[in-house]
Amino acid sequence: MFARAGHPVALYDREPQAIDEAIGLIEASLSDLAAFGLLEEEPGAVLARIRPVRDLDEAVAGAVHVQESVAETVEVKRTVFAELDRLAAPEAVLASSSSAITASRFTEELPGRARCLIAHPAAPPFLVPIVEIVPAPWTVPETVEATRVLMAAAGQTPIMVQREIEGFVFNRLQGALLREAYCLIRDGYVTAEDIDRAVVAGPGRRWAFTGPFENADLNYRGGVREHAARMGAAYARMGSERGQDDPWTEDLVAGVEAERHALLPREDWSERVAWRDRRLMALAALWRRDPD
Amino acid sequence: MFARAGHPVALYDREPQAIDEAIGLIEASLSDLAAFGLLEEEPGAVLARIRPVRDLDEAVAGAVHVQESVAETVEVKRTVFAELDRLAAPEAVLASSSSAITASRFTEELPGRARCLIAHPAAPPFLVPIVEIVPAPWTVPETVEATRVLMAAAGQTPIMVQREIEGFVFNRLQGALLREAYCLIRDGYVTAEDIDRAVVAGPGRRWAFTGPFENADLNYRGGVREHAARMGAAYARMGSERGQDDPWTEDLVAGVEAERHALLPREDWSERVAWRDRRLMALAALWRRDPD
Repeated sequence: MFARAGHPVALYDREPQAIDEAIGLIEASLSDLAAFGLLEEEPGAVLARIRPVRDLDEAVAGAVHVQESVAETVEVKRTVFAELDRLAAPEAVLASSSSAITASRFTEELPGRARCLIAHPAAPPFLVPIVEIVPAPWTVPETVEATRVLMAAAGQTPIMVQREIEGFVFNRLQGALLREAYCLIRDGYVTAEDIDRAVVAGPGRRWAFTGPFENADLNYRGGVREHAARMGAAYARMGSERGQDDPWTEDLVAGVEAERHALLPREDWSERVAWRDRRLMALAALWRRDPD
Repeated sequence: MFARAGHPVALYDREPQAIDEAIGLIEASLSDLAAFGLLEEEPGAVLARIRPVRDLDEAVAGAVHVQESVAETVEVKRTVFAELDRLAAPEAVLASSSSAITASRFTEELPGRARCLIAHPAAPPFLVPIVEIVPAPWTVPETVEATRVLMAAAGQTPIMVQREIEGFVFNRLQGALLREAYCLIRDGYVTAEDIDRAVVAGPGRRWAFTGPFENADLNYRGGVREHAARMGAAYARMGSERGQDDPWTEDLVAGVEAERHALLPREDWSERVAWRDRRLMALAALWRRDPD
C-alpha cells in the first residue's frame, strides 16, 4: 500500500522466509491490481520500491514512518517497540497495526513514547482502506496529524478515534456482530453457513456503500429518529437479552440525527436513496457475472 | 421482485395514493435495473404484471402467496392477518414482512394459523436478496417449504431460521452492531459520520462478499480456531464491558470450524483468499469510478 503510493519501503521480518513469501504475495497482488485497472504504473515499478532487508536496524534507518505488524500480544509489542524506539530516528513515527491492544500498554516506558500510536489497518490493507488512528494519552498531536496525512495521501480512509479503547472502532463493531452470531449458532437458531449467507445477501451489501447510520437514514423517510422510534424498543430488548442496557436516549438519537441532516439535507434524500440503489445494482451485477 | 420473477402481482394499500407512488418508484427502479443489465426483458413487461387494486378482497383473490408489509406493531399485524386469513383461499401462504415481531404474536387465534409465517426481506428487496423464513410453532412444514421454493426461484436468498426469536437473524446482527455504534458515539470515541466511514471503508467491504465466519477463516491460516484463540479473549472483554457474558467455548468454535472445513477444504484456502481479493478489487474499481 505504501509502495503503491510512491514511498520507498523497507520490509523486515525476523524470519527471512516470511520476507520471501511476502514478496511473492505482493507480486501476485500487484498483477491482479493492474488487471483491475487499480494501478497507475507497471506492477514492477511498485515492486521495485520495496526493499527486503535482513535486519531491523537497516529497516528503520532513514524511515519517517515505521509500521509494526507483529503478534497481537502486549509482551511482543513491548519488546519490538523498545527496539524500534532505540533504532529509529527521533522524528520517525512508530505506528502499531495492533488489532485491539491500545498503545499505552506497550509504550509507556519508552523515551520516545510521544511519537508512538496505533494505526490499525484491515486485512487486506491494500483493498480495505480503513486505518484507525488511536493515540495514547502521551502521543503528541503532530504524530497523529502526520499519520493521518500520510494515510490519506496513500488513498486510505483514516478514522480518528478520540481516545484509547480496547478493540478501537472496527473490531468493536465486528466483535459485537460476531458475539451475537455465535450466540445464535450456540442456541440452534441458525448455522454458521447461514449467518454468512445472511450477511452477504443482507446487511453486507448495504454496508459496502452506506454505514449503519446512513442506512437507517435512507430506509426511513423520517431518518434515524424514525428508525429509533420504530425499532429502538425491539433493539433494546434484544440487547437486554444479552445483558446490555445502553438505551438510545433522545439526546443521543438527536445528536446522530443532527449529523445526518448536516451530511444529507432532506431535499437531497430521494436522490441519495436512488444513488444507493444504483450502487447495489452495480454490486448485484458483479455477483451475477461471477456467482462465486 | 415477484413481478421480475414472472409472477402476476396484485398491489394493495389502504391509501390509494401510496399505490400510485409505489408504481412510480417501481417504474424508475425497473428502468435502472435494465440499464445495469439486471432484467431479462423490457421493464414494461415486468410492470405489466403488477395490478394495482383498490380493495384487499380483490388483492388476495386467487393469490397463492400474500406478502404483508404493514406497520411494525403487533396490533396492526393482528388486525390485517385476521382479515387476510378470512379473505384468502385456504391454500394461500400468508407471509409477514415483519422486521422483528414473531408470527406467533399475531397469528395464534387464527383458524388458518398453520399457513402463516415470517418472510422478512431487507430494503430494498429487489437488490438485497436476503429473506428470513421464520415459522411460528404451528406453521406446517409445507408452508415453510413452499415459501423457501418461491423465494429461491425468484432469485432471493432464503435463510431458514429454525425457531422464533425476536429480530430473527438479520436485525439481531444489525442491532448488535448498532448498539455498539451508539455506545461509542455516546462515550465520545467517534462521530456517527466516522462510524459510517469506518464500516464502508472497513468491514462492509468484506461482508459484501464473505460473511463474518468466512472472513475470520480467510484472515487466519489457522481459520476460525486461530481467530478465536488470538482474538476471542479481547472480544470477550469488549462484550463484558457491555454486560455480555457469552463465551466462545471450545465446542462452539469447533462446530463452526467443522462447518468451515466442510465448506472450504484446506487445500482450496489460498485460492479462496485470492478470489476474495479479486472481489474486493472489483468493488474498489467501482468506488474509484464513482467516488460517491
